[in-house]
Amino acid sequence: MTGSRLYLDHNATTPLRPEARAAMLAALDVTGSASSVHAEGRAARRIVEEAREKVASLVGAAAKAVVFVSGATEANATALTPHWRRGPADRPLEHCLVSAVEHASVLAGGRFAPDRVEMLPVDGAGRADLPAWSARMADLRQANERPLVSLMLANNETGVLQPVAALAEAVQAAGGVLHADAAQAAGKIAISMATLRADLLTLSGHKLGGPFGSGALVLASEALHLAEPLIAGGGQERGARAGTENLPAIAGFGAAAEAAARDLAAEAVRQRALQGRLEAGLGRIAPDVVVFGQGAERLPNTICFAVPGIPAETTLMALDLQGVAVSSGSACSSGKVRASHVLKAMAVVPDLASGAIRVSLGRSTAAEDVERFLAVFHRVHRTIYEKRRMRAA
Amino acid sequence: MTGSRLYLDHNATTPLRPEARAAMLAALDVTGSASSVHAEGRAARRIVEEAREKVASLVGAAAKAVVFVSGATEANATALTPHWRRGPADRPLEHCLVSAVEHASVLAGGRFAPDRVEMLPVDGAGRADLPAWSARMADLRQANERPLVSLMLANNETGVLQPVAALAEAVQAAGGVLHADAAQAAGKIAISMATLRADLLTLSGHKLGGPFGSGALVLASEALHLAEPLIAGGGQERGARAGTENLPAIAGFGAAAEAAARDLAAEAVRQRALQGRLEAGLGRIAPDVVVFGQGAERLPNTICFAVPGIPAETTLMALDLQGVAVSSGSACSSGKVRASHVLKAMAVVPDLASGAIRVSLGRSTAAEDVERFLAVFHRVHRTIYEKRRMRAA
Repeated sequence: MTGSRLYLDHNATTPLRPEARAAMLAALDVTGSASSVHAEGRAARRIVEEAREKVASLVGAAAKAVVFVSGATEANATALTPHWRRGPADRPLEHCLVSAVEHASVLAGGRFAPDRVEMLPVDGAGRADLPAWSARMADLRQANERPLVSLMLANNETGVLQPVAALAEAVQAAGGVLHADAAQAAGKIAISMATLRADLLTLSGHKLGGPFGSGALVLASEALHLAEPLIAGGGQERGARAGTENLPAIAGFGAAAEAAARDLAAEAVRQRALQGRLEAGLGRIAPDVVVFGQGAERLPNTICFAVPGIPAETTLMALDLQGVAVSSGSACSSGKVRASHVLKAMAVVPDLASGAIRVSLGRSTAAEDVERFLAVFHRVHRTIYEKRRMRAA
Repeated sequence: MTGSRLYLDHNATTPLRPEARAAMLAALDVTGSASSVHAEGRAARRIVEEAREKVASLVGAAAKAVVFVSGATEANATALTPHWRRGPADRPLEHCLVSAVEHASVLAGGRFAPDRVEMLPVDGAGRADLPAWSARMADLRQANERPLVSLMLANNETGVLQPVAALAEAVQAAGGVLHADAAQAAGKIAISMATLRADLLTLSGHKLGGPFGSGALVLASEALHLAEPLIAGGGQERGARAGTENLPAIAGFGAAAEAAARDLAAEAVRQRALQGRLEAGLGRIAPDVVVFGQGAERLPNTICFAVPGIPAETTLMALDLQGVAVSSGSACSSGKVRASHVLKAMAVVPDLASGAIRVSLGRSTAAEDVERFLAVFHRVHRTIYEKRRMRAA
């Protein structure tokens, strides 16, 4: 194994599935835009619509409910808008309520004015504080003001799952729209639009073994209409997203979604066991280790932890030099290691939060990889501790 | 040649260049997000930055001036916003002036309120009516209101080139921002940001032999700052466009831009000759044919024509059945054959406009292909004419 790299950053991006690669290669050789009416265009159209069926199927949606976009960040930017309508008389939504642990693309608030975006609290495990959320929604209902509520299905840093379905009733009572960012959850846990009860769902292609540049916004109901698309013009995606269809990315996304649906249950069990093994190993190496969100229901592949007194940057660089790729905080911060807003919202003390390392497993992760990680981490941990002791002496 | 298809719809999309395909395949095997700090992330980052250099080089820009987006439609949606700032005290731009022949994604007006978007006239050849535009800008200057002005470099339907540089002075005098949509021009004619004098330039990957899902907005000056990105969150693309970088698409775009820069001059000469040959042939088959924009400077690959009395749909379907793919009006209208807003703006009578066929050549188009097109068109034309004569009798 020496010499080869160990990639344990699958929540940032996971390698392309062979099925997705094959679908992309086939699509690369198709000439023609899916928006064209000639035979070439119709062939491209068929590829797009077959992929749409597969992506819809992963989350138990109707094919026509799937709007293909360039990725989860765009899906979130599209979802977060006052312009969702259930009827022609609907006025724009007045408020945007998001959890404090959402991805940066949700925290940005989309097309809501900054003063209309509110962050709602989470508990110590990072789960939406339901009584606080319900109270806020009751207020809005009283004021006859409607919210767009955005709560992620699984957190990208900690893997903690959110009680999305539990919010649905309160959001609906307030006449609002419920959005769930499932970029990190899809392909890792089973998702059904019916039981999730969200009105809008964000999916990412490259997080489930599909290509970069693919994503979708899934609508629970045909009654919900996006009055003002984020990207307008050519009328593609039933008017919800303009731009020539990204054929290879869409084809790859469809193939990956199909493959993910097939092996999801078995992989979840397998990775859950590896997660437990890795966390137990960490506890043996550093008895003072803190695994964030450990008390909550989590994704089976994510381990976010810190050892008190050791900054994440130090560990991250040492592991990287030893051939192990993990991440610190969110990977979407353009290379900067910043204090995690997620851990801050969970009331983790800054000193501990600054040591947070995220290990995320994937389909290619084997039991030996977990052992190798633990061996390397043990070495790195010992070295850092010794340096610190010498410096202190 | 019988049995094989003849694709003459290169303005809708053109086949992937082999260099782009190779770059994409290499990128498909890279594990890691370009936003990650570990070795895998840094390798991905290098691919992105090398592609950025190549795309910048195609239009004589600095690499850091290039903002990668998911395509030209997104680039246009990003460009058309009141939120461009040259200094911190800049207030939002008040008006959006676009030519009547722009692509649908520009006519949509981006993030300007619909009542702030004005269509400015073109002449009979489809070129911006400069005196009218200058008068409007003098008005705005008088009123101390600043415009975003959007004029495409080459029209997608007719290939007619626009006097973008001639507008620059008037736009700057009015304190405005000049945007040029070069989606259709790039890779077909030489472009230099310095001589074009636009502040913002839209590029499309798949129109120049790169992949779907790639595009760029190029900024002429570092002084120009996008205060509110269209897609916000992770801070990628220097804060101008969030979302995990689409590695294969960006790599393919870079390779295609490099290849396009290399063969552009020779291809322009070669295709210009084929264009002349095709138009001469059309004139022999149907002496009453009208080639739109023929009097103006045009792209070397585009022929937009109509034969009086023959609807485009009829010709298009007959050609498709004979194995020839061309288009009618814009391809970006989700499969619908609609009266062209471009020809309407050029004051072409509706009856003639409804017969408009666009033939667009590409790198793969040989002289024999032009002859084959003419032979098929001759047959189709004769059949349609005979049917009409019989019906009239």
